[in-house]
Amino acid sequence: MISYNRFYQKIAENRLSHWLNTLPAQLTHWQKANLHGEFAHWQKTLDALPKTLVSNVELNTQVKAGEREDINDGEYKRIENLLKKFKPWRKGPYHIHGLHIDTEWRSDFKWDRLKDHISPLKDRYVLDIGCGSGYHLWRMRGEHAKFVVGIDPTQLFLMQFNAIQHFIKDDNVNLLPLGVEDLPELKAFDTVFAMGVLYHRRSPIDFLYQLKSQLTKGGELVLETLIVDGDENTVLVPGERYAKMRNVWFLPSAAAMCAWLERVGFKNIRVVNTDITALDEQRKTQWIDTESLQDFLDPNDSSKTIEGYPAPKRAIFIANI
Amino acid sequence: MISYNRFYQKIAENRLSHWLNTLPAQLTHWQKANLHGEFAHWQKTLDALPKTLVSNVELNTQVKAGEREDINDGEYKRIENLLKKFKPWRKGPYHIHGLHIDTEWRSDFKWDRLKDHISPLKDRYVLDIGCGSGYHLWRMRGEHAKFVVGIDPTQLFLMQFNAIQHFIKDDNVNLLPLGVEDLPELKAFDTVFAMGVLYHRRSPIDFLYQLKSQLTKGGELVLETLIVDGDENTVLVPGERYAKMRNVWFLPSAAAMCAWLERVGFKNIRVVNTDITALDEQRKTQWIDTESLQDFLDPNDSSKTIEGYPAPKRAIFIANI
Amino acid sequence: MISYNRFYQKIAENRLSHWLNTLPAQLTHWQKANLHGEFAHWQKTLDALPKTLVSNVELNTQVKAGEREDINDGEYKRIENLLKKFKPWRKGPYHIHGLHIDTEWRSDFKWDRLKDHISPLKDRYVLDIGCGSGYHLWRMRGEHAKFVVGIDPTQLFLMQFNAIQHFIKDDNVNLLPLGVEDLPELKAFDTVFAMGVLYHRRSPIDFLYQLKSQLTKGGELVLETLIVDGDENTVLVPGERYAKMRNVWFLPSAAAMCAWLERVGFKNIRVVNTDITALDEQRKTQWIDTESLQDFLDPNDSSKTIEGYPAPKRAIFIANI
Amino acid sequence: MISYNRFYQKIAENRLSHWLNTLPAQLTHWQKANLHGEFAHWQKTLDALPKTLVSNVELNTQVKAGEREDINDGEYKRIENLLKKFKPWRKGPYHIHGLHIDTEWRSDFKWDRLKDHISPLKDRYVLDIGCGSGYHLWRMRGEHAKFVVGIDPTQLFLMQFNAIQHFIKDDNVNLLPLGVEDLPELKAFDTVFAMGVLYHRRSPIDFLYQLKSQLTKGGELVLETLIVDGDENTVLVPGERYAKMRNVWFLPSAAAMCAWLERVGFKNIRVVNTDITALDEQRKTQWIDTESLQDFLDPNDSSKTIEGYPAPKRAIFIANI
Repeated sequence: MISYNRFYQKIAENRLSHWLNTLPAQLTHWQKANLHGEFAHWQKTLDALPKTLVSNVELNTQVKAGEREDINDGEYKRIENLLKKFKPWRKGPYHIHGLHIDTEWRSDFKWDRLKDHISPLKDRYVLDIGCGSGYHLWRMRGEHAKFVVGIDPTQLFLMQFNAIQHFIKDDNVNLLPLGVEDLPELKAFDTVFAMGVLYHRRSPIDFLYQLKSQLTKGGELVLETLIVDGDENTVLVPGERYAKMRNVWFLPSAAAMCAWLERVGFKNIRVVNTDITALDEQRKTQWIDTESLQDFLDPNDSSKTIEGYPAPKRAIFIANI
Repeated sequence: MISYNRFYQKIAENRLSHWLNTLPAQLTHWQKANLHGEFAHWQKTLDALPKTLVSNVELNTQVKAGEREDINDGEYKRIENLLKKFKPWRKGPYHIHGLHIDTEWRSDFKWDRLKDHISPLKDRYVLDIGCGSGYHLWRMRGEHAKFVVGIDPTQLFLMQFNAIQHFIKDDNVNLLPLGVEDLPELKAFDTVFAMGVLYHRRSPIDFLYQLKSQLTKGGELVLETLIVDGDENTVLVPGERYAKMRNVWFLPSAAAMCAWLERVGFKNIRVVNTDITALDEQRKTQWIDTESLQDFLDPNDSSKTIEGYPAPKRAIFIANI
Repeated sequence: MISYNRFYQKIAENRLSHWLNTLPAQLTHWQKANLHGEFAHWQKTLDALPKTLVSNVELNTQVKAGEREDINDGEYKRIENLLKKFKPWRKGPYHIHGLHIDTEWRSDFKWDRLKDHISPLKDRYVLDIGCGSGYHLWRMRGEHAKFVVGIDPTQLFLMQFNAIQHFIKDDNVNLLPLGVEDLPELKAFDTVFAMGVLYHRRSPIDFLYQLKSQLTKGGELVLETLIVDGDENTVLVPGERYAKMRNVWFLPSAAAMCAWLERVGFKNIRVVNTDITALDEQRKTQWIDTESLQDFLDPNDSSKTIEGYPAPKRAIFIANI
Repeated sequence: MISYNRFYQKIAENRLSHWLNTLPAQLTHWQKANLHGEFAHWQKTLDALPKTLVSNVELNTQVKAGEREDINDGEYKRIENLLKKFKPWRKGPYHIHGLHIDTEWRSDFKWDRLKDHISPLKDRYVLDIGCGSGYHLWRMRGEHAKFVVGIDPTQLFLMQFNAIQHFIKDDNVNLLPLGVEDLPELKAFDTVFAMGVLYHRRSPIDFLYQLKSQLTKGGELVLETLIVDGDENTVLVPGERYAKMRNVWFLPSAAAMCAWLERVGFKNIRVVNTDITALDEQRKTQWIDTESLQDFLDPNDSSKTIEGYPAPKRAIFIANI
């Protein structure tokens, strides 16, 4: 059993206290009914991580906890072996006591592309929907956000997050194993991030309404998604797979995405960055055993996916309510 | 209270019996909680309709019940006065004892455009989602469908249907006051019609899955919706209003619509008709007191809506599962 | 799957139609979730019963279907073998094509004790709560009740009932696998029987309210239960077992039982019979393989149960609302 | 809106954290749906209580907060006037800044009768079911219980409790507006009190199971209820009223009550006190405007209620699981 009591104490005394109406029941049900077959095994791996003295934590320019010198060779090896059991590590990188978790994605690149465009996170309540292992949660806290919550239903990501949390120990940063559909309309976050999720939703309009309903009045949405070139009437709905991913639904143009945001009631909508994912941002490392971007592209024409669609191009949208 | 007991008897003995798991509880709840403010008043109007001798019923080429000669002048006048209380009459026309209910829409035009393309309805179980006053339900029965169910949550349409049913009296034709989201996955209809609904749905993909889940194996979908010109990546999401309608979401091109149908798992997809709605098909009559098509178009350019979007163009899609 | 569609048709057209709000969902859930481990096996046994020509059915003086002469020796043997698979047969007796199902209980004795005291059942809707294999259901129908429903959650009893129904074929007699707590407040039955159930309820007062809520205005309750001697303040709550039965709670005196009935709102309350169960009414036969009454009594003093409580004494109460 | 956030914080960090699965949703629903018509008015009265300096609090020998000298005449008068708006005050007495709330009941008498018989409350989690205005909650805390929770669905009692809490300010003492049927099986309290409740329950056996399910292993039940004289088969179920109270159901003898407790699984059952309620323990004061005990008894024979039943006699039972 994972205990969420410390999280409940925190929200009972902050502006998220109304979340107690639904959250404990959901998480209790989740622990009874929906655990991954490997969950108990993973939990043991987590429990086996050595309790170390973490001499420093750096979250503002990178996610780094402790120095190599804090631990001995045996501890270093043990940490490495245990953390590798949580492969594939997709989002990162992390540096733990000198161990470089060289994840598939350089998520720091994405952070660098957006961080100067968003409202300063200092003292804000922040929600990251589809946060993966939680890399950006730490960077948000590194910007002095007051309380950071990530949600992601993939339980391996929860394990990865808990492994990093084991070393950083910051109870203002939390990951909950929920999907966006599990959230009540909290209307309480100053900034909501939703990066890399919209194209996985069957109903992007409903998704935008869900995002909106998490924001406090005047709050800010930071949305990143796959786009295609075209005018405001251009939307690609690919066939069964896109870049080998099942479960990709709507890829609008940037103009179409802006129109959708406006239709749903967002204001002050702008595209702050568009970027074709480069092969040095998403690539195979020793921390993943699966394929990566270069396997998803046409070997003869990297401007196309292996299915012949335009290669992944991403845009970052910022908007307010 | 409207009694659905006769409907329950019918489905208890046919292939829709599993609908009894949810339907009676829904309709009981609906009658307790969701009746329109005018409902009791409308019901009285219905009850006041004279019980007439209906000398004949014609459903195959039109919807006609009884002759003028079956009734006297007083009865004729009374029927006319009572039926006008159910204005606006949108879908029709109907002929009741010589009274011509000249509805806003010539729904018979749409029927004529599709009837030769669909599988013969003889002996089929048919569902019409968003059926309005139920005009097409009668035409489906006129093609010898075995059991015809329409659903539409608008209660005035239910009254109009019940008024016509008062004269036709066919318990194999039924209208239930439900939305598509109220249906369980019945997997029982041979043909499902969904005409003029998809563009009102926030999530067209979920809507297509809902339609699919009503069909029996090998069943046929007949889908009619607003389209725009363009290739398979063209989708218009209008602003707050389209042709003065709020609540219009996705207008795909015919090619995009076909791609969506395929993605959701339909087969044998074809466009059997496209048509720009003409001013003689949707127009103001003495049976509606509201605006009609010509008020929704740009007065200087009838190829555009008053908001500047392409004027309504409709296509009929047929597909199988 | 047992189909209840015929039952739903029947109630859709009679005064029980409001039961459709809950019953189909309950029975569907029951078939999915709560079937006995032997259910499929029992169902096969049922299906193997030969379809015979039943030359006559007698329900008024006994429960008898068919004559020995209707069938040949092989069929007789087969019926006997199959029906013995449903042992133990507790309530009866039944006569099927000359086969005497000599059940543990002579339930006809109980019927004889009460039948002259109750309101004539002709044309009445009748409910029997805790009906066992349904012996009395047939006798009620034999008195020309219009529609007879028994409920009992024990699935073996359902099988026994269905076996008898296989020969009698009367769709105005039905047994549903429900407990009293599964019934909505139907307020629809003219007579409600509850025999041998009250002492198994943790809350006899709630049970009396449940019985009351099944009756139509002016309806009649026929309640039979174990009593003890004493005044209106005498109630025995035995220890863990009474006559080897677990799950026995309240044994009031007849006077106390009458006071409870009055308190709950019944009128015209009377005790029409009290009777110490005799060894010829409940005894071991070849149709049960388990112990019977004589094993439950003190071998040295048949006025006491083996635990030392007063031996079973039963009273029949009749009351109206 | 009453905020329960502080209570949620407390239980999130103690052994009641699993209560978060249901409690916040219940209390939110309660505040939306079930508030008494006077609730907003009462809340204003509460808010008008002066914030005083409370120089001392005494809970061990009485419930006393502050001295007369802590406040001036105007404050004293204001407190008196405001607290009288919460009449009738049934359980007490309380002493607030020298103001003597002379309640209908001398609940301290009952406490004195039981306090030497129960396990010392020091460091225990304690639940009081049907706690009224919460007088005994304070006395339990006065015995150094660690965390005290009372439940009572009557909202006026909640107001009285909150008024006293306004002066005492102890967040380890809480009253929640719940009935016993609203509690999940917490299995977490060291001592459960249920005084003056059992005779109001339709199903005393179910009530005993509910009490049992609140106790931690080895926990102690303190049950006080009305009894009658008699042996273990003696139980009075009065008619519509008992001592003018509607809603009185089962009055067992002490022996019967012990048998019930044993049947439900309690151990080490003993009667530690029986007592006929005296006229100086329950009587009319200026803090109630309604009738009291002497109005409920036969004016000519105080050993009988006005209905002729035995006058109220109470017993205290202690048992363990």
